[in-house]
Amino acid sequence: MKKYALGLDFGTLSVRALFVDIETGEEAAAAVYEYPHGVMTEALPDGTPLPPNFALEHPHDFLNGLEFVIPAGMKAGDICSEQVIGIGVDITTATVLAVDENGTPLSDYPEFANRPEAWMKLWKHHGAIEMADRMLEVARERKESWLNFYGDWLSSELFMPKAVELAVNDPEVFARTHNLIEAADWIVWKLTGEVTRSAALAGCNSLYRYDTGYPSKEYFKAVYPEAENVPDKLVGRIAPLGSCAGHLIPEMAEKLGLLAGTPVGVGMIDSHSAVMGCGASRVGDMVSTIGTSANNMLNAVPGPGISGIYSAAPDANIPGLFGYEGGQNCVGDALAWYVDNCVPASYVEAAKAEGVNIHTYLQTRAEKLKPGESGLIALDWFNGVRTPLMDFSLTSAIVGLSVRTKPEEIYRALVEATVFGNKRIIDTYEEAGCPVTRIIAAGGIPMKNSMMMQIYADVCDQDIYLCGSPQASARGSAILGAAAAGPEVHGCKDIYELIEKLGKLADVVYHPIPENVEKYKKIYALYKQLSEEMAKDGGVVRELLKLKREA
Amino acid sequence: MKKYALGLDFGTLSVRALFVDIETGEEAAAAVYEYPHGVMTEALPDGTPLPPNFALEHPHDFLNGLEFVIPAGMKAGDICSEQVIGIGVDITTATVLAVDENGTPLSDYPEFANRPEAWMKLWKHHGAIEMADRMLEVARERKESWLNFYGDWLSSELFMPKAVELAVNDPEVFARTHNLIEAADWIVWKLTGEVTRSAALAGCNSLYRYDTGYPSKEYFKAVYPEAENVPDKLVGRIAPLGSCAGHLIPEMAEKLGLLAGTPVGVGMIDSHSAVMGCGASRVGDMVSTIGTSANNMLNAVPGPGISGIYSAAPDANIPGLFGYEGGQNCVGDALAWYVDNCVPASYVEAAKAEGVNIHTYLQTRAEKLKPGESGLIALDWFNGVRTPLMDFSLTSAIVGLSVRTKPEEIYRALVEATVFGNKRIIDTYEEAGCPVTRIIAAGGIPMKNSMMMQIYADVCDQDIYLCGSPQASARGSAILGAAAAGPEVHGCKDIYELIEKLGKLADVVYHPIPENVEKYKKIYALYKQLSEEMAKDGGVVRELLKLKREA
Repeated sequence: MKKYALGLDFGTLSVRALFVDIETGEEAAAAVYEYPHGVMTEALPDGTPLPPNFALEHPHDFLNGLEFVIPAGMKAGDICSEQVIGIGVDITTATVLAVDENGTPLSDYPEFANRPEAWMKLWKHHGAIEMADRMLEVARERKESWLNFYGDWLSSELFMPKAVELAVNDPEVFARTHNLIEAADWIVWKLTGEVTRSAALAGCNSLYRYDTGYPSKEYFKAVYPEAENVPDKLVGRIAPLGSCAGHLIPEMAEKLGLLAGTPVGVGMIDSHSAVMGCGASRVGDMVSTIGTSANNMLNAVPGPGISGIYSAAPDANIPGLFGYEGGQNCVGDALAWYVDNCVPASYVEAAKAEGVNIHTYLQTRAEKLKPGESGLIALDWFNGVRTPLMDFSLTSAIVGLSVRTKPEEIYRALVEATVFGNKRIIDTYEEAGCPVTRIIAAGGIPMKNSMMMQIYADVCDQDIYLCGSPQASARGSAILGAAAAGPEVHGCKDIYELIEKLGKLADVVYHPIPENVEKYKKIYALYKQLSEEMAKDGGVVRELLKLKREA
Repeated sequence: MKKYALGLDFGTLSVRALFVDIETGEEAAAAVYEYPHGVMTEALPDGTPLPPNFALEHPHDFLNGLEFVIPAGMKAGDICSEQVIGIGVDITTATVLAVDENGTPLSDYPEFANRPEAWMKLWKHHGAIEMADRMLEVARERKESWLNFYGDWLSSELFMPKAVELAVNDPEVFARTHNLIEAADWIVWKLTGEVTRSAALAGCNSLYRYDTGYPSKEYFKAVYPEAENVPDKLVGRIAPLGSCAGHLIPEMAEKLGLLAGTPVGVGMIDSHSAVMGCGASRVGDMVSTIGTSANNMLNAVPGPGISGIYSAAPDANIPGLFGYEGGQNCVGDALAWYVDNCVPASYVEAAKAEGVNIHTYLQTRAEKLKPGESGLIALDWFNGVRTPLMDFSLTSAIVGLSVRTKPEEIYRALVEATVFGNKRIIDTYEEAGCPVTRIIAAGGIPMKNSMMMQIYADVCDQDIYLCGSPQASARGSAILGAAAAGPEVHGCKDIYELIEKLGKLADVVYHPIPENVEKYKKIYALYKQLSEEMAKDGGVVRELLKLKREA
């Protein structure tokens, strides 16, 4: 009888169940459920309008999704409950949900149904910008030791600014809150009946240090007096990634069509879960998930925080290893902007005539160009800079234009810029003493843009491996499900062997072309020169931003 | 009986006759003739293929044009021969024509009909790049005193490199050449039966210094031994602009339907002729003709050459005054490049739906933006830089881009860049001690692009006047025709009064808006900063060019 590990991957708009054969790694079955409420940015379900920058989700979409995707996947794959050896969960982060002692969301309470702060905040909820700024200011003043692990900077997308936002904006809901919890930990609670907070989530999103814990009540009080009690609302033990959080309770087992007692793994961050999904088990492995933006997750030995690398924590990417996460704000987004705003009608028509999409049309032409041939260079700062500058106001540049410049040349320059930005993150790691010895590209773009991957290999002078699954995150969760079942069930000597067995790389590898490597060394040096000139104090980009603010 | 001055304006593709009422300045009649052979870049009329970079014209197109446009214009305006008081001629320069003792082009000789060097070279003939480089090298070595009057640089578009090219490439045709002459001087010769070389043409295009004459035979010999005799082929007196070159000979009078003895003015450069056409008679007047590229002609008191200002000579723009010419390689060309290569299909469709051309569509949106609002800045170096850097390899840059950048913002940044480039020329004049006290914009773009003109006023903090005629050059030639007839006929006390009377400004004047002036001071400072950073040794643009050459 085949055995399957179940990975549950909760994204922004849908949840997916993936059943992975624990012997062959085969993806035996999958099912997807789209959240009926999607992302709520305008109004709550009862019509209450939302403030600007709010992005909320409906917790019952998550629970209903669970009840749909698991039976549906099992039916599709002809899988019975005995065959499912363990369950792993990953969810977009940082989500923040206020619940009572029983794990019931306060948004279920009739008296709070029209209170935005009672609802689940999505990762891209930006209501806490002011709180994040204030928290950063106070953390700097107080020289908080955890700040360095967050790249000496605080994003409003992290867990704590959103928690503080609740305390400040709605003291009543805050007072009634028993537990402020990440959705991944909440789902694990729902499945097992016990609160288990993931070390990965706490370390990467919640300012938790493995040695000193959460920031103190004194700190939160100094931020806003109303926020003093935030640490009291973080109830539950913190468990290491890869361990068993508990076992499926009968009530849920019945709803889901699984066996009561099925092991459930500690929850995970969806993008980081892809590291396991790719089989990246070694120190020095870096998984770069490349989509609209990019995240570079690096497995490392325990070390200090790195300025500009926005999280550094044990278990960050895979169980037992220290992990870093750096990132780029704009990859696919820059290409999408270019296509929407700068591609001439003649090219759109020609692509149509060839029956290809405009990206393919441009790529086909751009990949014929040699490095340096266009005489162009661009920055990848079309949506600010994350690593290493942590400045989201910075803007981009294209240099080397002439009346002879063709659209495919600009397209290639933009692709090169995104690769240079990625290389800059790798440099940041290596300059801080963390070598990057294997690069794995995951996400939507690597499978589609072979030109980008070849440039990636040439710029980094390293082989570029590709993730072998379009569902790397769900596959990573399935690995956590298998791990929760223990070695006697999954049969591997340790979690690293399990990751290598069930993680998946594609057969294709991009090798650096020596001639291009030499060229790109020079072009990348110019990218850095241009970056420095533009972003320095008094640099053109900085001065333009001042003028823009004045205008 | 009304009296008319006749201006003949020979452009690249056609010749125009314009009859201007010498009392009212009214444009009473005009006629145009398109050259049947146009610009010959591929082959001679007999099919002989041309080398790359050649651009030749057929001298008989010019003569046939004369015979067509004068009678046609007179018929259209119901003008009789007695009413035409004088003729002025302007032609694109530098043109070079090899003729015999009678002024017969050597291309008329059957034995030379298949010899490219026997044909008339157009201004944009670029066969003499190597010769210009060599001439510059030797001039620097020999510290030739005229070099400074050509901006310490030599364009292959000037007269002498093309003359040297003939001597080097076809010694047989060169040996048979009696006179190497500019087309404007040749037409005057055809009309009057005598050779009269224009001081404006000699000073601006032929390395002629009013005090020392042409460069010596020693110089030409040092350039190429075969070129030693070039100065011997420059036959004919040099006459001041505004003077009478001679009178119409009976043979031509009959062909043209004019009176024999009609005065003919000394020939002129077509773009410079626009200075008179605008009525710019004062020292400090600068006429900026703005089209695909831009020329800034300044009336001045006699002074030294200015580095980066590519001609400085007496009579350069108007009779009796010293004149300078600086320029920008790319104005309309940059906007045309943008529209052809970077405007999205959605904008093209929206413009079509509104029934306006795409430039108008973009301008309508761009002019609503405040200075600095887009956060963008661009260079105007899409076709290299003329004044002041004299480097045609330099490329451009756009800085400040983000995923929120809209096409109209880029369009405005490109327009601003062209204005900054123009302001940089004005600065070059003023830094050299030549004040620019009145700015007049002529050419195609000023009438169409009111946004550009307002930005021009704001950036320069000066009123911007517009030329009042779409035929400023032909009008300037008509003034030279009237001047040739003398004060007793035209009735003005001097040429300056005549220029003011017959030159024409538009009623519209663009006044600087103080708020914008302050903003643009800062943005222009950034333009200069960006220029310097990009073009310095080791600057990004310079290094990109190196990489491009290597690729």
